[in-house]
Amino acid sequence: MLFDLDGTLIDSVYQHVLAWREAFEALGIHVPNWRIHRRIGMSDVLIVKELSREAGRPFNADQTGKVKDLHTRFYLARTKELRPLPGAKELLELLKTKSIVYAIVTSSSHERAQSSLEMLGIGPDIHVVTLEQASFGKPDPDLFFAAMKQLQTAPGDCIIIGDSTWDILAARRAGVLPVGVLTGGYPEEELFRAGAYRVYKDPADFSENLDELGIHI
Amino acid sequence: MLFDLDGTLIDSVYQHVLAWREAFEALGIHVPNWRIHRRIGMSDVLIVKELSREAGRPFNADQTGKVKDLHTRFYLARTKELRPLPGAKELLELLKTKSIVYAIVTSSSHERAQSSLEMLGIGPDIHVVTLEQASFGKPDPDLFFAAMKQLQTAPGDCIIIGDSTWDILAARRAGVLPVGVLTGGYPEEELFRAGAYRVYKDPADFSENLDELGIHI
Repeated sequence: MLFDLDGTLIDSVYQHVLAWREAFEALGIHVPNWRIHRRIGMSDVLIVKELSREAGRPFNADQTGKVKDLHTRFYLARTKELRPLPGAKELLELLKTKSIVYAIVTSSSHERAQSSLEMLGIGPDIHVVTLEQASFGKPDPDLFFAAMKQLQTAPGDCIIIGDSTWDILAARRAGVLPVGVLTGGYPEEELFRAGAYRVYKDPADFSENLDELGIHI
Repeated sequence: MLFDLDGTLIDSVYQHVLAWREAFEALGIHVPNWRIHRRIGMSDVLIVKELSREAGRPFNADQTGKVKDLHTRFYLARTKELRPLPGAKELLELLKTKSIVYAIVTSSSHERAQSSLEMLGIGPDIHVVTLEQASFGKPDPDLFFAAMKQLQTAPGDCIIIGDSTWDILAARRAGVLPVGVLTGGYPEEELFRAGAYRVYKDPADFSENLDELGIHI
């Protein structure tokens, strides 16, 4: 199982949204929160490219670097607000007990993911793939390919669990079965339309329905 | 035209979400952000009732009062982050120029609505209906009835514009045509399913398509 982190295991999407809003505003662009929300889960570069272009002010490399750094700073200032999503820790413990191999695969940098990983009790025995380990973040499939290489597994033997359409698209591009969760605030309908095989409320709901995925526990 | 305020004209939904999360946590309940998001637009009393019950800890009157007060405090601490949504000010100016009568109808208290109203340049010549002026907030239709009474108009002559299913439900119960906007981060599909006649991206998009509502300007 390949898990997205933000919005899937950790309740951090709303903090990311406000951190981006603040960052864009510092560079003179007003981007409404709902538009940012729909981009969360993408790589930083794509978020900046799309939102600055939509606002009619496409950023150059220098501005892109600045807004990314500001987002990281404003987000890290909010990490004390983060909490694990319902059932997230219990799910990971269950998988461990049942020897079901999993990894964490995030478009976030290692720096930004750190506190979330600690909060979930994820130790060095678990593979964690962050932005540093691939050329492109989601919805490119590279991060998932890197994870499967580390786990020495094939797309047909994996499931990708994520909260955004960018996870679903990356999963499909990687040839992996995508499963959605509602915990990022993404519309259920969009996750299904993007190709999610099933959409669960949260990690607890996912955990209770593992049999629907053909998993014997 | 009867406009909702938070999430429809002002970009405040995400701040409301985080303020509620903080308030619930202060009373020992962890409520995930996405679940709060889906309740924004309802009256405070209903939000507290539903979320505390869902968490398996239904609040009594004393706890309800406390969490409401904390939400107000945490929300007011965030008012400096609020911005008008794209096209909101221009839309209200256009309506004024064209002598199309409108009112603001919000489940929020006057205290919480104050800074948003100032930001939009809404003066004493515009009718503003807040929670104090009805027995029940949305999705009950009472606030809209109060507004129509003030404007001396009938349901068949009005349009209600809101970002949440609670606006749409209240509009239908009031016998008024509901129109949705995506600016609160509510799923388009849910607004349509709830009965929105049309769903626009934001106030700017609504403004450009007034003819679709049979309005001659």
